[in-house]
Amino acid sequence: MVRAGDGGPIQRLIQALAKLPGLGPRSARRTALALLRQRETLLDPLAAAIEEARRSVLTCRVCGTLDGTDPCGICTDPARDASRICVVEQVGDLWAIERAGGWQGRYHVLGGTLSPLASVGPDRLSIDALLARAAEDGVREVVLALNITVDGQTTAHYLADRLGSSGVAVTRLAQGVPLGGELDYLDDGTLLAALAQRR
Amino acid sequence: MVRAGDGGPIQRLIQALAKLPGLGPRSARRTALALLRQRETLLDPLAAAIEEARRSVLTCRVCGTLDGTDPCGICTDPARDASRICVVEQVGDLWAIERAGGWQGRYHVLGGTLSPLASVGPDRLSIDALLARAAEDGVREVVLALNITVDGQTTAHYLADRLGSSGVAVTRLAQGVPLGGELDYLDDGTLLAALAQRR
Repeated sequence: MVRAGDGGPIQRLIQALAKLPGLGPRSARRTALALLRQRETLLDPLAAAIEEARRSVLTCRVCGTLDGTDPCGICTDPARDASRICVVEQVGDLWAIERAGGWQGRYHVLGGTLSPLASVGPDRLSIDALLARAAEDGVREVVLALNITVDGQTTAHYLADRLGSSGVAVTRLAQGVPLGGELDYLDDGTLLAALAQRR
Repeated sequence: MVRAGDGGPIQRLIQALAKLPGLGPRSARRTALALLRQRETLLDPLAAAIEEARRSVLTCRVCGTLDGTDPCGICTDPARDASRICVVEQVGDLWAIERAGGWQGRYHVLGGTLSPLASVGPDRLSIDALLARAAEDGVREVVLALNITVDGQTTAHYLADRLGSSGVAVTRLAQGVPLGGELDYLDDGTLLAALAQRR
């Protein structure tokens, strides 16, 4: 559509940007223009960061997260409690828990959830590796921090089953009213769960 | 905030992405994750497109637009009418007119608008080059396609003044009701302009 850049470097930059999540054709054009007009402050730093990421971001062989080292900084941090493993679906969930800042244990990234409809079976997730880690000496607790969705909770049930024979404590995140949550605006499911699990 | 990537390559990628227009910290994290998880389909093509753009996107010495060649594809296209110059504020405006597809002439990118408050005077814009082009043999019309904003219209007035002695016809975009525009939802200024310029 951009006549001036048809098939040219600008058009290819816009097309590459438009594939990013949340960027449509219009914001891709706007982003490309901003990059090209601010080369020193936007384009060059982004190019350098992307090159560095391509070169040096690795998948941790232990927990499956992304980091500049393998094993990752969390798995090699002696200050983290190796006896507790928090299981998350994706790396973004690990980041969210790290931002919240209260977890001192380690992680295990499943890589998704079981989903019969999308034909994601146990072999497509990092479940065998989790079972092996849970069977290691000194592991006492596995926290299933999966999303409170149908697939997430199905997967949590499955994992709890599989982990049942390993002798570790299997726990889950509490469900209830979020901080600042106003009951009047809360969905019924959350409200019923918070009532049922009242303490 | 991302403990796992503090000061690392992931954090630097997120920071570079967060500087792009329209991407906040959360969408920058989401974008970085998508890039790192889909290296072959997202990260590598974007890296290649950015490298190519850094290497080969130039500013046209004639009209000021961005393109893979200098002079640009429009300025060197013999099928474009060199006697008509459409003046726009920014490259994005040129792209918008090209997408609309009805303009067969050439362009001149001012690089912004006069703005006394932001101390943008005539010397900061590509005005001398425009006057020189308008004085060339064979140029018959200059269309001032500036935004219908205070700064855009101030700049258009200024340019019309400066171009007055050059002998070229100076025209502007028509103002009025946009296609699909419903009068009930239109602002008063547009409605009054459409009434005053009725035909």
